[in-house]
Amino acid sequence: MMKRGFASDNNAGVLPEVLKAMESVNQGHTVGYGDDPVTIEAIELFKKEFGEDIDVYFVFNGTGANVLGLSTLTQSYNSVICADTSHIQVDECGAPERFTGCKLLPVKSEKGKITPEQIEQYLHGFGFEHHAQPGVISISQVTELGTVYSVEEIKAIAGLAHSHGLYLHMDGARIANAAVALDLPFKAFTKEAGIDVLSFGGTKNGLMMGEAVIFFNPELSKNAKYIRKQSMQLFSKMRFVSAQFLPYFKNGLWKKSATHANQMALLLEKEVLKIKGVKLTQKTEANGVFAIIPQKIIEKLQQEYFFYVWDANRSEVRWMTSFDTTEEDVYDFVRILKSLL
Amino acid sequence: MMKRGFASDNNAGVLPEVLKAMESVNQGHTVGYGDDPVTIEAIELFKKEFGEDIDVYFVFNGTGANVLGLSTLTQSYNSVICADTSHIQVDECGAPERFTGCKLLPVKSEKGKITPEQIEQYLHGFGFEHHAQPGVISISQVTELGTVYSVEEIKAIAGLAHSHGLYLHMDGARIANAAVALDLPFKAFTKEAGIDVLSFGGTKNGLMMGEAVIFFNPELSKNAKYIRKQSMQLFSKMRFVSAQFLPYFKNGLWKKSATHANQMALLLEKEVLKIKGVKLTQKTEANGVFAIIPQKIIEKLQQEYFFYVWDANRSEVRWMTSFDTTEEDVYDFVRILKSLL
Amino acid sequence: MMKRGFASDNNAGVLPEVLKAMESVNQGHTVGYGDDPVTIEAIELFKKEFGEDIDVYFVFNGTGANVLGLSTLTQSYNSVICADTSHIQVDECGAPERFTGCKLLPVKSEKGKITPEQIEQYLHGFGFEHHAQPGVISISQVTELGTVYSVEEIKAIAGLAHSHGLYLHMDGARIANAAVALDLPFKAFTKEAGIDVLSFGGTKNGLMMGEAVIFFNPELSKNAKYIRKQSMQLFSKMRFVSAQFLPYFKNGLWKKSATHANQMALLLEKEVLKIKGVKLTQKTEANGVFAIIPQKIIEKLQQEYFFYVWDANRSEVRWMTSFDTTEEDVYDFVRILKSLL
Amino acid sequence: MMKRGFASDNNAGVLPEVLKAMESVNQGHTVGYGDDPVTIEAIELFKKEFGEDIDVYFVFNGTGANVLGLSTLTQSYNSVICADTSHIQVDECGAPERFTGCKLLPVKSEKGKITPEQIEQYLHGFGFEHHAQPGVISISQVTELGTVYSVEEIKAIAGLAHSHGLYLHMDGARIANAAVALDLPFKAFTKEAGIDVLSFGGTKNGLMMGEAVIFFNPELSKNAKYIRKQSMQLFSKMRFVSAQFLPYFKNGLWKKSATHANQMALLLEKEVLKIKGVKLTQKTEANGVFAIIPQKIIEKLQQEYFFYVWDANRSEVRWMTSFDTTEEDVYDFVRILKSLL
Repeated sequence: MMKRGFASDNNAGVLPEVLKAMESVNQGHTVGYGDDPVTIEAIELFKKEFGEDIDVYFVFNGTGANVLGLSTLTQSYNSVICADTSHIQVDECGAPERFTGCKLLPVKSEKGKITPEQIEQYLHGFGFEHHAQPGVISISQVTELGTVYSVEEIKAIAGLAHSHGLYLHMDGARIANAAVALDLPFKAFTKEAGIDVLSFGGTKNGLMMGEAVIFFNPELSKNAKYIRKQSMQLFSKMRFVSAQFLPYFKNGLWKKSATHANQMALLLEKEVLKIKGVKLTQKTEANGVFAIIPQKIIEKLQQEYFFYVWDANRSEVRWMTSFDTTEEDVYDFVRILKSLL
Repeated sequence: MMKRGFASDNNAGVLPEVLKAMESVNQGHTVGYGDDPVTIEAIELFKKEFGEDIDVYFVFNGTGANVLGLSTLTQSYNSVICADTSHIQVDECGAPERFTGCKLLPVKSEKGKITPEQIEQYLHGFGFEHHAQPGVISISQVTELGTVYSVEEIKAIAGLAHSHGLYLHMDGARIANAAVALDLPFKAFTKEAGIDVLSFGGTKNGLMMGEAVIFFNPELSKNAKYIRKQSMQLFSKMRFVSAQFLPYFKNGLWKKSATHANQMALLLEKEVLKIKGVKLTQKTEANGVFAIIPQKIIEKLQQEYFFYVWDANRSEVRWMTSFDTTEEDVYDFVRILKSLL
Repeated sequence: MMKRGFASDNNAGVLPEVLKAMESVNQGHTVGYGDDPVTIEAIELFKKEFGEDIDVYFVFNGTGANVLGLSTLTQSYNSVICADTSHIQVDECGAPERFTGCKLLPVKSEKGKITPEQIEQYLHGFGFEHHAQPGVISISQVTELGTVYSVEEIKAIAGLAHSHGLYLHMDGARIANAAVALDLPFKAFTKEAGIDVLSFGGTKNGLMMGEAVIFFNPELSKNAKYIRKQSMQLFSKMRFVSAQFLPYFKNGLWKKSATHANQMALLLEKEVLKIKGVKLTQKTEANGVFAIIPQKIIEKLQQEYFFYVWDANRSEVRWMTSFDTTEEDVYDFVRILKSLL
Repeated sequence: MMKRGFASDNNAGVLPEVLKAMESVNQGHTVGYGDDPVTIEAIELFKKEFGEDIDVYFVFNGTGANVLGLSTLTQSYNSVICADTSHIQVDECGAPERFTGCKLLPVKSEKGKITPEQIEQYLHGFGFEHHAQPGVISISQVTELGTVYSVEEIKAIAGLAHSHGLYLHMDGARIANAAVALDLPFKAFTKEAGIDVLSFGGTKNGLMMGEAVIFFNPELSKNAKYIRKQSMQLFSKMRFVSAQFLPYFKNGLWKKSATHANQMALLLEKEVLKIKGVKLTQKTEANGVFAIIPQKIIEKLQQEYFFYVWDANRSEVRWMTSFDTTEEDVYDFVRILKSLL
């Protein structure tokens, strides 16, 4: 396999305990599609975390999770307000539009976050049949630029959404990193902050695959099972997805992994701040570091530790840390970076 | 876990070698989404099996595989001709319609198979703008009723399709069981028989999850990667899907598993044929046994070995064997069945 | 223009009074999209006919009307049960599937009608997430084979639908011909018979274009205006559509036109019954006559009076009468038919 | 009817000659759906205007025209780049997204126009499967802000589009007004400027309803007839749409109407420029005048001559002139406006 790099927290493998859990459920036969004890237990763990009155659906990937969530919240004549840097806008190849038929309204965002003032510009035309009806606001937590919404920020957006009859969706592909960054339980900045539907990500934090869509309002999810099947997200041997969440919660794995990843990012940021000729473009709040480095050293540096160019126009690069990033990786990377400059 | 039953070959777990292979690739970092050595190696194994000029896409599940295949073959004004018992017609909650926008035309089938004579009835209206244009014929191999198309049957349908400008799609969720039943290499009854796109299933034959969509005409697949992403079927840590196919092919696992499952079905059929009061409704050609048993014993029997009722109207049940079904399972089941009658 | 023929009631022109009404509203400026006095007046006329608690939406054509109706009644994971001869199944190039994402389930019909016994076969799988959830039954009145459902037949289907939680939709492209055939007011066999949404056709009975979608349950139509706009059915100069319905109702034009068309069809049927070598395949209940004639005379006969072949396999042809079909047309046609035989 | 106002060129009626033409084709029977002499003649007139190698499809409305055009140019994984003020982005209730499944990318535009520099920002991610593939650039001529692209501007955008493998679509809802403003034949700023598909509008310039979609590349339109039907845009009594285009072209009606409307707008602009307290926000290039007036006089002024508020945030209003706007209307309106200030 490849040397560890800073390209993506998707490039890391799977936490050993998670793999073990998957092996341990590989016994005998189990009814598929979720009606099995492992899945039921996993859902109970989610309920311990978020409260009793939730509904949980396991799906394959982040795109599928977002689409399932948005699908249940919308009719095709609705629009979805999101950041112009959001995954649903940039990196899902138009899956939301294709599957929901909705219009996405991208809001210009500097740091990956959108504000009530910005969103308000789009809250008009209600009842006007020519106008796609704003129906959902979607925010990413952690954002695609590695920043983190505070609870107050989320509550403010939720208040705006609900007062206008919109729902609030959260893309939590990196939600564990956010929980660590905020040092809060999951529900404090989701359910209790006014989120209606949440894509709860695990793949970027050490699971093999499989995300959970969490509905905080049972009314919203009453037909979710059909939409999940119709969006090709129903896993037949579902115990192998749900089993991953058992140690993830029971052993606090999510916290350990995300804490470590965040710390490695902070370490990288700290070391990089010392280097002249490298300009950080975002404050590191979770597990991502964004920096501008000279264009001519990018390829050489990528050969040592792979990473992606974030914005070629301004030579901005993105370094993501993972649960298995070591301090040695960071120091070594910084050393090479310095030498190339 | 549950005792092994005869409900579905989806209820079995994962072949030990497959799990091992997944563990073995859990090292270091790997670029996601398929640009990794494991996926490349797996694709090479498919090419050894099917020939060089194919294109292979790994997706999550059978529904996703079928929809990706159909999507590349159609425009939304096309229709898809299939058996009324087919998975795309019955068990995908309308995913094909939703994602492709196409009309499905179900052909009445007694034994799960459709014939050129039947299909021909639907080949009209070409060029007539009011009429959804027949674009694809889709057949399942093995069929949902456990029957198997012969090579001649497939060639006949392919000839009909191509002579009318249609494509031929094969849903091979249980393709390994078909290969064993026919005692032929995969390509003999797919690529060489005129199939244009194939859903190559593995989950029902001992893999954890993940199917492959195989295009036998590179023209057809030139945009498949976008459709895969847009249909939410792109696996980020793809090596864990492709790794499964390594022992599946290299160690002939597919053949061992399917052979065993088929044999267990034949054994079950043989034993059941001896029982008065049980009427088989299909000849067992692969790993499924369909029988009519008295309605009053169904529930008790399900409690011993779980299985599904296939057609409640006529008390028809379905018994599926898996790679891990043992002879003891079969004999014990038959014993209990006899005692209940 | 072409000599009048028996091809389609779409081939006729426009009733003179209707054209006059369109001219009379061509004065000054009017707010578009329906907020105008003419449209309001037209809706009032519908309310006089159907009762106060209805909602009426003018759209462009029959396909648009059906899709708007079905769209409001379904989520994409629903299925729509209809006759295999229905317009939505055969002649809309898959518009229902594309726009609603739903699966259509065609029921085999001999005389264009479907029965509760037949429909019941499809009412299963409720709550089973793999199965598209039956959501709507759609019937055509008059059917595509020129037959007419009785009030009892409609009530029976409505009862079946509602008892299973389904809606009942009626494609009334030729609804005026049905009202005449049944000698009943419109509401007697629609609203009062359990129809939930109705495509009220006028184009085939002397209007220029424009149909009305009538909702008999305001709950169903609360978002219909958005769906109409999104399905590209919102007419900006709507007064020109609604104006047509003023004389259509006020002067009883609908009744005169449909009565005349039906009578001409009955006359044609009567005359044709006398001819050896011509076999009628349907009883003429409205304005369509279906007959089997020798294949070799079809083209010659079409050159005299154009008509369409209905089923080439059995040399079945369809003769439609319109509001402007004259007795001379009928006698002349019969004369030529006899001479060709 | 309402007094003439300045709300929309959709609120005007129909040119008398056009109504006459519709009446004149109301004779006898004609085969529907376009296979009639009137439609053929109308298409010939388009060919005289644009050249022989075009393909013309009549549809119902502007939204339907745009969607048909975009549909033929895209696969659902494409994106469409357009102005943030464009009709497809703002006023079609998401019809493009719903029907094509594509993502729309709105470019910030001050004067309704977009530039190559702006568009270039969006031309990236080609071949990157996560990214909706830019497929079409769509511009409106006249823009929604009443401005007009020059031929050079269009050629520049076309060059950019084609060099990147994109198509260029033009929403010509007010194309006649543009032709007059540019004083050029239609083809000079469409076909010859690099437009691939054009929505040719007539409803806002004196037709009753019905627009034409013109393909300048027969390869693009080979399946357009199916898409038209499937998008519910196929008019059965098509001669009544195509008949309108006969005098529209033969009698130069399009030019007279648009010239008059443009002149009335220029007159209004000239008069308004003299008024203190009114600030024009756009240069009047066609038939629209945009101005900021004190919020408190808006309602009173609307009661005299109806118009729409364009941007409530800054009290900006829009005054549209039509083919039937008189000089007296303009002077009277200005008089009242002055008195209210």
